Amino acid sequence: MKKFEEKTVHSERIYEGKIINLKVDDVTLPNGKQSKRELVEHPGAVAVIAITPDNKLVMVEQYRKALERSIVEIPAGKLEKGEEPAASAKRELEEETGYTAGSFRHIQSFSTSPGFADEVIHLYAAEELKKTEQGAAPDEDEFVELLEVTMEEAEQMMQDGRIYDAKTAFAVLWAKQEIATDN
Amino acid sequence: MKKFEEKTVHSERIYEGKIINLKVDDVTLPNGKQSKRELVEHPGAVAVIAITPDNKLVMVEQYRKALERSIVEIPAGKLEKGEEPAASAKRELEEETGYTAGSFRHIQSFSTSPGFADEVIHLYAAEELKKTEQGAAPDEDEFVELLEVTMEEAEQMMQDGRIYDAKTAFAVLWAKQEIATDN
Repeated sequence: MKKFEEKTVHSERIYEGKIINLKVDDVTLPNGKQSKRELVEHPGAVAVIAITPDNKLVMVEQYRKALERSIVEIPAGKLEKGEEPAASAKRELEEETGYTAGSFRHIQSFSTSPGFADEVIHLYAAEELKKTEQGAAPDEDEFVELLEVTMEEAEQMMQDGRIYDAKTAFAVLWAKQEIATDN
Repeated sequence: MKKFEEKTVHSERIYEGKIINLKVDDVTLPNGKQSKRELVEHPGAVAVIAITPDNKLVMVEQYRKALERSIVEIPAGKLEKGEEPAASAKRELEEETGYTAGSFRHIQSFSTSPGFADEVIHLYAAEELKKTEQGAAPDEDEFVELLEVTMEEAEQMMQDGRIYDAKTAFAVLWAKQEIATDN
């Protein structure tokens, strides 16, 4: 797991932000040469593949400034300091969608952009969903629209580009296999 | 696609790097309040799901400084300025693995980290692979090890965390469905 290791010779911190930090590391390559690595630090995130009893996927549409457009994604959120990923995923699901899950399990964790960022997303599957009495309760400055889509609709949204991020693309393929196996 | 749009009031460029740039935008939210968005600009990338005639996946192992470890990924690379994604994907496949493909098609494009980065990966499937005479020809300062893994090995690597990035996790699920449909 350390094959072709790049040792840090010097690290310069460029920016410390609210969510991300940026540093530039000088590294020694396996052939002894030096190179630079521009690296973003991110607290990590959780995301939930939530499947309703009638096999719909719970999604949220929101504006993504980095893309200058709104996209349809599975419910997700940044990890808060010291928070366990599973607890964070349950909290995000309940806040963003108003659902709690009778069945909740870890599916996969993955790096989103290993070339320049340390962000890892912890992905969970939530089934046996029940609506809470108070419903969705997003933060005051969070603007999201809740959707429940069939597998066919989700696949169409991937073709149309309304679904347009890696975790949600993974989730659609995963849910398709999960639902096929269940039936 | 502009639902809940966040209008830019002011944009500050923090860093212009070799690969990524960082800016911080002041935005107006749909409720009129202001907020800040920390945004990474990235040139975009291509990645290739390359399936050999005996249904193995072509992978490369390389060190990822952002994660401080090596991981196993599908062949991928940054888009060069002005380069068409399909041409870039064919070039990366040939340079990194020494394969050319008789069948080459676009599968999906997705944003890797829509919360803070504009990076989009264009994903291609390459089949009917043939080894070129000269074989793999990575850049002088690129250290990658070529692997060809069965679907079972790829799924085991996802469980072990040797496969640990979003595009490759998507690729393994996609290839599983593709191979099942072919047979």
